[in-house]
Amino acid sequence: MPSISNKGKQMPASPIRKLVPYAEAAKKRGVHVIHLNIGQPDIKTPKVALDAVRNHNIEVLEYSMTQGSEAYRQKIAAYYAKQDIFVDAEDIIVTTGGSEALSFAMGTIMDNGDEIIIPEPFYANYNGFATAAGVNVKPIASSIENNFALPPISKFEELITPKTKAILICNPGNPTGYLYSKEEIEQLAELVKKHNLFLIADEVYREFTYDGREHYSILQVEGLEEYAIVVDSVSKRYSMCGARIGCLISKNTEVISTAMKFAQARLSPPTFAQIASEAALETPQEYFDNVIEEYVSRRNLLITELNKLEGVKVATPQGAFYCVVELPIADADHFAQWLLESFVLDGNTVMVAPAAGFYATPGLGKNQIRIAYVLEKEQLVKAVQILGKALTEYNAK
Amino acid sequence: MPSISNKGKQMPASPIRKLVPYAEAAKKRGVHVIHLNIGQPDIKTPKVALDAVRNHNIEVLEYSMTQGSEAYRQKIAAYYAKQDIFVDAEDIIVTTGGSEALSFAMGTIMDNGDEIIIPEPFYANYNGFATAAGVNVKPIASSIENNFALPPISKFEELITPKTKAILICNPGNPTGYLYSKEEIEQLAELVKKHNLFLIADEVYREFTYDGREHYSILQVEGLEEYAIVVDSVSKRYSMCGARIGCLISKNTEVISTAMKFAQARLSPPTFAQIASEAALETPQEYFDNVIEEYVSRRNLLITELNKLEGVKVATPQGAFYCVVELPIADADHFAQWLLESFVLDGNTVMVAPAAGFYATPGLGKNQIRIAYVLEKEQLVKAVQILGKALTEYNAK
Repeated sequence: MPSISNKGKQMPASPIRKLVPYAEAAKKRGVHVIHLNIGQPDIKTPKVALDAVRNHNIEVLEYSMTQGSEAYRQKIAAYYAKQDIFVDAEDIIVTTGGSEALSFAMGTIMDNGDEIIIPEPFYANYNGFATAAGVNVKPIASSIENNFALPPISKFEELITPKTKAILICNPGNPTGYLYSKEEIEQLAELVKKHNLFLIADEVYREFTYDGREHYSILQVEGLEEYAIVVDSVSKRYSMCGARIGCLISKNTEVISTAMKFAQARLSPPTFAQIASEAALETPQEYFDNVIEEYVSRRNLLITELNKLEGVKVATPQGAFYCVVELPIADADHFAQWLLESFVLDGNTVMVAPAAGFYATPGLGKNQIRIAYVLEKEQLVKAVQILGKALTEYNAK
Repeated sequence: MPSISNKGKQMPASPIRKLVPYAEAAKKRGVHVIHLNIGQPDIKTPKVALDAVRNHNIEVLEYSMTQGSEAYRQKIAAYYAKQDIFVDAEDIIVTTGGSEALSFAMGTIMDNGDEIIIPEPFYANYNGFATAAGVNVKPIASSIENNFALPPISKFEELITPKTKAILICNPGNPTGYLYSKEEIEQLAELVKKHNLFLIADEVYREFTYDGREHYSILQVEGLEEYAIVVDSVSKRYSMCGARIGCLISKNTEVISTAMKFAQARLSPPTFAQIASEAALETPQEYFDNVIEEYVSRRNLLITELNKLEGVKVATPQGAFYCVVELPIADADHFAQWLLESFVLDGNTVMVAPAAGFYATPGLGKNQIRIAYVLEKEQLVKAVQILGKALTEYNAK
């Protein structure tokens, strides 16, 4: 029997997936599982996007342009201009989700054995894309003590080797909810220019910023044009994760022309999803105002409730819809499994994402979990109550 | 300025893309360009598929299951059963086009520096996926003299090294239209078992077989279960290239569980396209009968017309909707460009795909072109007439 690749063996399985069978077993026992673990918003997709697909008049569902339709890319550029980000349609490649934009970015700038520096905790799938590209992730720990702010630049410089090709950030962050300040972005910009590296920013949560804070894109830094690569997606912005549309943006023409070769191999991004995504750009501002208001009140409630629990520490997210929570336990993997296997309160339990899967450094984040506040407030309050009682019972064992 | 990857530099550009600016210039001069170069069928997408998307009742466009919805995979398995291919829903991963299935297959079984043997000429994007995966393609030339039949097994054995991990075939073939016989498939099966290799078959043109010939899938070979990986797609079968839905199929559970890790990193295939693809399985047999009848009559007409041209040799395709044509010229790249730049007949010219881009061995196929017969018969006849006059004029220079 032929053997699979080493790469395949090294590909990380999702940290949540190990728990799925336990969640299924709990449901079979009649237990209601409140999911704090999933980044799938419950918010309705804008009607204008769904209607555009309902009203399609396609007769032959043809390939679209490899880089996405001209009309759609023009509209994306106009969307960015409203956010003081000035790019042209030809700086944009429409991709199959932000995921594909990340793959293209890694393939475009890195070879087998190259290194990418990423502040941790970070979105677990970065590991998957890096492994698939044969790239080594060099993590730098950020800390819950200062809300997971950017680690000191000196820590980055300690990690830079001749193999280092890029720094990757997620802003605002999944799983931290941390929103980088203009100053932090400028520090990173100086760093990558000094060491001749690319700076990749996953800005898919750009619109989800709170407390009057504004998102500052790496595309807004003057003089960073040749270094900056942005990954974006419609998934969270319009609550249309199932569309699978994102984009790669760079003013570096060599990056775009090279990424286009990867894009040509896969022919084109999905057509129906592009129709929905183009229409989604017509979503009225009121939709976003309501969504932001809802997330802020959920976040506030969640943080307030979590802070009532003894021994629980929580970073206050200023963006996205996640937070990392430190629990008075030794092993969140074990706790998460125990919650599903052995704990019930009034017929309910919760499923959480153990945070160790968001760290690349072994041993870090073992007492942390990630919570996605994409549930209604009533459910969030109930979930934190369950978490509180569960912690007491778990630690009394 | 940071530099892009060697991989990025090596990624092949599409052989047709070089001609695109010349085609655009011709159109600007008012010349009508008949496209013989594109594998985008003009056939209408089944109404049942398009209607299913029109009638969607989605409110939150969520991620689907990573491996594709259970219901859809059950129906795919039922579709195969009707073709005497017996697989279960869990042997199937729904992918974003056949392209993604190929990427997953390569990542799953091959590491950087590994080798894959592919009979040439072959679908040019195999080069792109191989380069992206860091895999070296080892081509074996097939010949127009015998319709591009499978090269002798001894030729494969000469190429096998410790680095060889797989053999990849396209059946029926793009660009050759060649349909492998049961005997040829069985020879390949013996070969991969003997040398402990995977056999990947791109069977996206499975339904397009002519002259009473039947497609024989590598999944039908007894004892090949652990070695066989099939790539499939809805793109051509239902004329829905823009959907971007395909699948990876294997009875080898380690292949599936490893490919699933690559699939998890990109979250899920596109939802609207899955709705269309699931509904497409309800397409009445009459649709296919009509399509096959149409392609057969186009093929017959095309071959008849081509055979009238002096010095032109054409393989008779028994499947798919392509054929490779040998022309009495030295350099099809130059000829194709000349057609667009310098030749007009009654306001028309043709765009062809030079076949050299379908060969990995430098120098092969230089006097060949690929023609896709996805045009109405009237257009095909006109195109061949233009080709004939153009050859005369080109060779008289």
